[in-house]
Amino acid sequence: MAKKRSEIAAIQGERGAFSQAAARKLLGEEVEVLPCQRFEEVFQRLQKKAVDAAIIPIENTLAGSVHENYDHLLHYDFRILGETSVRIVHNLIAPPRVSFRDLRRVFSHPVALNQCLDFFVKNPRIEKVPFYDTAGSVKMIMEEGLKDAAGIASSIAAELYGARILKRSIEDDRQNFTRFFLLRRQDWKSKPALPAPRGWKTSLVFTTRNIPGSLFRAISAFALRDVNLAKIESRPLRGKPWEYLFYLDFMGHVEDEHICNALGHLAELADFLRVLGCYPRGD
Amino acid sequence: MAKKRSEIAAIQGERGAFSQAAARKLLGEEVEVLPCQRFEEVFQRLQKKAVDAAIIPIENTLAGSVHENYDHLLHYDFRILGETSVRIVHNLIAPPRVSFRDLRRVFSHPVALNQCLDFFVKNPRIEKVPFYDTAGSVKMIMEEGLKDAAGIASSIAAELYGARILKRSIEDDRQNFTRFFLLRRQDWKSKPALPAPRGWKTSLVFTTRNIPGSLFRAISAFALRDVNLAKIESRPLRGKPWEYLFYLDFMGHVEDEHICNALGHLAELADFLRVLGCYPRGD
Repeated sequence: MAKKRSEIAAIQGERGAFSQAAARKLLGEEVEVLPCQRFEEVFQRLQKKAVDAAIIPIENTLAGSVHENYDHLLHYDFRILGETSVRIVHNLIAPPRVSFRDLRRVFSHPVALNQCLDFFVKNPRIEKVPFYDTAGSVKMIMEEGLKDAAGIASSIAAELYGARILKRSIEDDRQNFTRFFLLRRQDWKSKPALPAPRGWKTSLVFTTRNIPGSLFRAISAFALRDVNLAKIESRPLRGKPWEYLFYLDFMGHVEDEHICNALGHLAELADFLRVLGCYPRGD
Repeated sequence: MAKKRSEIAAIQGERGAFSQAAARKLLGEEVEVLPCQRFEEVFQRLQKKAVDAAIIPIENTLAGSVHENYDHLLHYDFRILGETSVRIVHNLIAPPRVSFRDLRRVFSHPVALNQCLDFFVKNPRIEKVPFYDTAGSVKMIMEEGLKDAAGIASSIAAELYGARILKRSIEDDRQNFTRFFLLRRQDWKSKPALPAPRGWKTSLVFTTRNIPGSLFRAISAFALRDVNLAKIESRPLRGKPWEYLFYLDFMGHVEDEHICNALGHLAELADFLRVLGCYPRGD
């Protein structure tokens, strides 16, 4: 029997980015990734069928939502078919023969550098150097053969670029998780049905008429049926200053009777409503 | 009688930034501004009493909320005492003797460049050059005496740096407004009471117990009393992954009876509640 081709997923960032860890959790260890510079490129690659899927970060427990990706979810008509969360473990990674006492500079994305401030306070001889990408910092240090430098990135980055982890988990706050979505084109067929050991989740976006109490009434469609909301996010509605799009995540499957009823009720109240996806609840 | 000292307000960005236009609307034409590089510096300057007030952008009708400033509002215990909105008019600004046909390069903040794409499509000989600040681009062009360059910034920037507006309002979307808050320290006394010809608005932040229906019940405190919500924003709660802080803006004054009752009702339901300010509704 012919071996099944590995799937290819577009991610933002270099190979070894945390999105690649999410891709492995959602699509299996053998998944291949197509690195993209910008989030919009990730969406474009999926639309042009250059990839089978896209993996995008949607929120981080310290930094909050990735608002740009909410806007892309509205603009591109893809389906959310999975979610997972990845603990952001920042590792200090150097070329194999560089030891900790050789280090004078540490490269990484500014957000990663800022999440490891205690490390830099304890090691004042080491300078923080902002770089465009976490995994990209490890790639660059290996390519340039730097002898006094390390990067801060995921353990996958160390593995992929043949570098060595000098210190694991140097982040200040261990409650640092990023939630990712798995996106597919609308025509993608899932057979057999995906397993959902923790139940289902649904994501949607809507707008309401701009009248007093309209958000309250919209949320009541769920509360009155004991549907548990996991998240609400608002984004500006273009062309209508000070009006908003609302994105909701809630527990339940679109084919459950009470969810069907809640969606029907919301449709009565909403000017615009689109289900973005229904997917197994992640870990 | 001694002339009253002009107030000084901290703003993010160079003199001539849109925040300065907001400062003039909120504190009068004679207000002086203290330019700061980062938003956090604006808050620090107010805390250390280096300034009388701070002016911060909180949301833009195209880009959405300025989430970083929501986090600072929680961390620093200031009062919101005013709001206003400024239409973001992007002007093409050059030194006095530079004409439109001399232009080969236009400098500005990347967000401003991206809001003027039609202009660059119509003028392909002109290159977009990203710069750290809108008003700062005009300042630099004047200081360097560039002969082939313009900046994109507010009309105040042209006035302050002695430059000339070559084209007004080159932004793609005229529905581009930024809403600003006026912040003061808690000990600031306002006498006489501020005028509020359009009524009052109140802003607060709260967290709820993480149980089904808790956001619905929290919002019901307002809906059941016909209080009109203007905005809801969520931010991650540090240390509690996948739980959120909610920021609400609503119409009404904290001393109105129905608002007092709504706040009492919300306090019953909330784990944490803080009123951030009560201020005249802006234009």
